[in-house]
Amino acid sequence: MDELVLHEDPRSGNCYKIRLTAALLGLPLERVEYDIMNGDTRRPEFLRDVNANGRIPVLQIGTGDRRRFLPESNAACWYLAEGSRLVPDSRFDRADMLRWMFFEQYNHEPNVATLRFWLQFVGESRLSEYQRSQIMPKRAGGEAALALMDEHLATRDWFVGSDPTLADIALYAYTHVCEAGGFRLRDYAAVCGWLDRVAALPGYVEM
Amino acid sequence: MDELVLHEDPRSGNCYKIRLTAALLGLPLERVEYDIMNGDTRRPEFLRDVNANGRIPVLQIGTGDRRRFLPESNAACWYLAEGSRLVPDSRFDRADMLRWMFFEQYNHEPNVATLRFWLQFVGESRLSEYQRSQIMPKRAGGEAALALMDEHLATRDWFVGSDPTLADIALYAYTHVCEAGGFRLRDYAAVCGWLDRVAALPGYVEM
Repeated sequence: MDELVLHEDPRSGNCYKIRLTAALLGLPLERVEYDIMNGDTRRPEFLRDVNANGRIPVLQIGTGDRRRFLPESNAACWYLAEGSRLVPDSRFDRADMLRWMFFEQYNHEPNVATLRFWLQFVGESRLSEYQRSQIMPKRAGGEAALALMDEHLATRDWFVGSDPTLADIALYAYTHVCEAGGFRLRDYAAVCGWLDRVAALPGYVEM
Repeated sequence: MDELVLHEDPRSGNCYKIRLTAALLGLPLERVEYDIMNGDTRRPEFLRDVNANGRIPVLQIGTGDRRRFLPESNAACWYLAEGSRLVPDSRFDRADMLRWMFFEQYNHEPNVATLRFWLQFVGESRLSEYQRSQIMPKRAGGEAALALMDEHLATRDWFVGSDPTLADIALYAYTHVCEAGGFRLRDYAAVCGWLDRVAALPGYVEM
């Protein structure tokens, strides 16, 4: 595989997904840090060279003139893991893994990750009135996502099939730090057991 | 491939993605209709048998005791198209296709599709105060997504590589009906040209 460079903010769970995937697969990853609170990813050179969408993470593949950039955390995880043990062999299970990764970006991250960002990094007193009006709906949405995960995990060890996949990595990133956004992990016993299983995987790295 | 059944609301662009993918690939698809305005997808039997997340589309694969259910529109499109001409051969391009599909679910659908749903199907006068407070932010988010697409398409015919892929199908679904949500397609010339190219694909079906 070509040289890999992760453009990231180390506080971001979306960036952590990519580091965790690389670590579990033993892939070396250089890191370039940005401070999203300072607007580092909205500067003209970042928008021009790295991601016109102004967001991290971006996985850079190769260096120099032939480098290519891949935004979207779950797409970057897919790039790293395709063909590895973290992507299931069966066609249905591969699609089912993507199903949980789309669920993560649609139902989980906009609620669970956003509340963590607002409450831990921005600070409740500095939220706009519009952001404040979203706290309760995002709380409800995040709790619904966690409850669905808990129900699913009540009868199985991993989200898809009988082994860990990218679905587990994608959902682990913001779930294991969700208390910073005001969620209570102890309400979700099956989720807690699953978090422990992820953290026990060989090669696991902390956020 | 096993028998395929789409659980859908025909007004939903997320459901249309799956029908369009199947049509372009010549795959037969049975259809079971639900009315999301009536709460059809929140009933106990739907939550138990089809999707605990209470949402359509769900792609059912097989029938009887061996049937399996796949929620999340883009995961269902992946299941249908994996190995076909709608999924690129190169590892980078496959991941880049998923990148645009995750972008669609994170930056595009929650803005462009939600405003269409609210304004065309719910009706502005029946929106809650909280929903009304979200119209302007969702307008801005949707315009940013359309502008990013327009910039990307200014120099290429398709989102990834030189042929149509699932990225085009995923982004086409709600873009081609975005005016129902108050967006102006004529502001995005490159997007308009691309919409015409999608509609001219052999096997294309209308929403």
